[in-house]
Amino acid sequence: MTEKKVGIIGVGMTKFGEHWDMSYRDLVIGAGTKAIMDAGIEGKDINEIYVGSMSPGTLIGQEHIGALVADYVGLVGIGATRVEAACASGGLALRQAYLSVKSGRNDIVVAGGAEKMTDVPTPQAAVSLAGAGDEEWEAFNGATFPALYALMAQRHIYEYGTTLEQISEVSVKSHYNASLNPTAQFRFKVTLEQVMNSAPVAMPLRLLHCSPITDGAATIILASEEKTRELTDNPVWICASALSTDTLALHDRESLSRTDAAVIAGRNAYAQAGITQEDIDFAEVHDCFSIAEIMAIEALGFCDFGEGGKITENGETGIDGRIPINTSGGLKAKGHPVGATGIAQAIEVALQLRGEAGERQVKDAEIGLTHNVGGSGATCAVHIFSR
Amino acid sequence: MTEKKVGIIGVGMTKFGEHWDMSYRDLVIGAGTKAIMDAGIEGKDINEIYVGSMSPGTLIGQEHIGALVADYVGLVGIGATRVEAACASGGLALRQAYLSVKSGRNDIVVAGGAEKMTDVPTPQAAVSLAGAGDEEWEAFNGATFPALYALMAQRHIYEYGTTLEQISEVSVKSHYNASLNPTAQFRFKVTLEQVMNSAPVAMPLRLLHCSPITDGAATIILASEEKTRELTDNPVWICASALSTDTLALHDRESLSRTDAAVIAGRNAYAQAGITQEDIDFAEVHDCFSIAEIMAIEALGFCDFGEGGKITENGETGIDGRIPINTSGGLKAKGHPVGATGIAQAIEVALQLRGEAGERQVKDAEIGLTHNVGGSGATCAVHIFSR
Repeated sequence: MTEKKVGIIGVGMTKFGEHWDMSYRDLVIGAGTKAIMDAGIEGKDINEIYVGSMSPGTLIGQEHIGALVADYVGLVGIGATRVEAACASGGLALRQAYLSVKSGRNDIVVAGGAEKMTDVPTPQAAVSLAGAGDEEWEAFNGATFPALYALMAQRHIYEYGTTLEQISEVSVKSHYNASLNPTAQFRFKVTLEQVMNSAPVAMPLRLLHCSPITDGAATIILASEEKTRELTDNPVWICASALSTDTLALHDRESLSRTDAAVIAGRNAYAQAGITQEDIDFAEVHDCFSIAEIMAIEALGFCDFGEGGKITENGETGIDGRIPINTSGGLKAKGHPVGATGIAQAIEVALQLRGEAGERQVKDAEIGLTHNVGGSGATCAVHIFSR
Repeated sequence: MTEKKVGIIGVGMTKFGEHWDMSYRDLVIGAGTKAIMDAGIEGKDINEIYVGSMSPGTLIGQEHIGALVADYVGLVGIGATRVEAACASGGLALRQAYLSVKSGRNDIVVAGGAEKMTDVPTPQAAVSLAGAGDEEWEAFNGATFPALYALMAQRHIYEYGTTLEQISEVSVKSHYNASLNPTAQFRFKVTLEQVMNSAPVAMPLRLLHCSPITDGAATIILASEEKTRELTDNPVWICASALSTDTLALHDRESLSRTDAAVIAGRNAYAQAGITQEDIDFAEVHDCFSIAEIMAIEALGFCDFGEGGKITENGETGIDGRIPINTSGGLKAKGHPVGATGIAQAIEVALQLRGEAGERQVKDAEIGLTHNVGGSGATCAVHIFSR
């Protein structure tokens, strides 16, 4: 196959948060319209749509999301496909859209992600989210996601001596970064003391180690190399898209303190892009719980296994650090409308590479990475982007 | 792009029916194993998986289906993506797998589909299925699927003089064909009188005009031209894959008696394959209700609009007729485990083209078509296959 370059020509997202006055449809329209305006195209220029959404069936009683989006953004007739991989649904929608352009089949393809989580009581949302794990072995027996990540945290602490202070520093950084991000759900800073004394959820994890329930949508518009150069002077290129899987249930894995799907997807992504982890200037990683950020930066090779807590504590992952992580505020503080998260990560990377990240801009950002996880790590999608 | 040929090297499905002793996982393993054995390959030869499933979140409390399937068929590590488009989920999984091979990216890709519908009470399954329509405008107001298709049937009767006898003849034919199909859910024949006197569901539709609640899984293995020729002496080729959308809600359409997404997808598929509808020897179409088969054969051009009832009544759609439709028994009598249906349609076409359809074999079958619909027609995927 002649490999084609794929560019990003438009991005748009709603503010993440509790949108009591907006439906799923309103969110999708909001994000989609912004992306189309950002790209400077018209709806009729779009060839195909991929949408990531995890649980609209249980959260809003609506499946058939691809057709819904095509209909509500005024594009009836074109192909529209929903993809789902739990919290990695957005990353997989991005991947399918990327492959659609890369194959030469289409010129302009939309990748969207959305979730409306506040229309059901929080316990019901937790039950929906538990569908990302192994229903028969985990959820049925009461192992919701805080419990699963608490097991991983306990094991990380046991194996590597990772401290609660280190895990908490992830949250402090996330909230600081979110305070600089107008689209973030929680735009307030927190202190280490506040994090460590917040309400216990599943020990060692406390409230401020956990990402929230969020409403939101995010849209990114991809184009072929020719179309990208025609439509924008400030292109961002996708250099790699890798996808890997692990066992659905935590107990089937070789290690609880390592996410192998991320190791494999990361390695494959670096190979596709022809670079190493040292070439990555910054990354958005899947910190559904703060321990997950530590495990992610280890799996991606930004530090050795067991060192994730330490490099967080010494500031290497801050906006001005060696490898800035989650400049957006991450899932923890930007918010985590599950289907939208993978797309929103890519938007943050695109804004950084365009130099449009405002107060949270990473200096001289040339190459960025996104790491989007489904469940407790059974799916991982890694994308690499460059200016 | 250099266009690559895509072949079918293996097919496998569970019997469709009420599988009280089998879980979703058992169904997936059953169908997957059969397909791998049929292809004569090993699991490690598989590059990627696409799975179609509509509502596992509401039906079995499980999302994250791609990773689940990769895990339970022993392929942890490879990329696995669930796609959803309501009852067209299987057709869209087939399409993504086809595109994956066609782009030259992968050699051997699996397309699977599954649904486990009997683990919840039937009214709850009906609520899940209603998520295929427009939740805010249709389901919320009580318009379940029998009601929506009843509206279409009423309009078809009003506009074209289609008779209840004609609609009922679809069911008589479906049950007859299913009596010849070992994988079908309902292997008994019904008379015109039985269909017309069956219990009213949503007038004019009666029980024997409606497809059932079904458990089942179906798997198809696709390969590049070189791999296909290497692995089988009796290849089936995919000549076209087209996808189109219509408005999610019925009331937004120009016509209630015509499914425009099928018209567009059909037209695009014929163009891709370089043929016309006259070249199609037989087809599997989406008869979730018997009126839907009549509308499908009209949309695909096998007869003029308004003539679907007549050509059914005069036997043109029978196994030995001019254009055999639903030799498998269709959704009506073969069963309709929604996510699996699109894949099972392709399996029936593959078996016919291989000459392996036993007592229901279509003579001299050279080119077959599948038509898989989501909701009341908001998604339609059309595939064309040849020997």
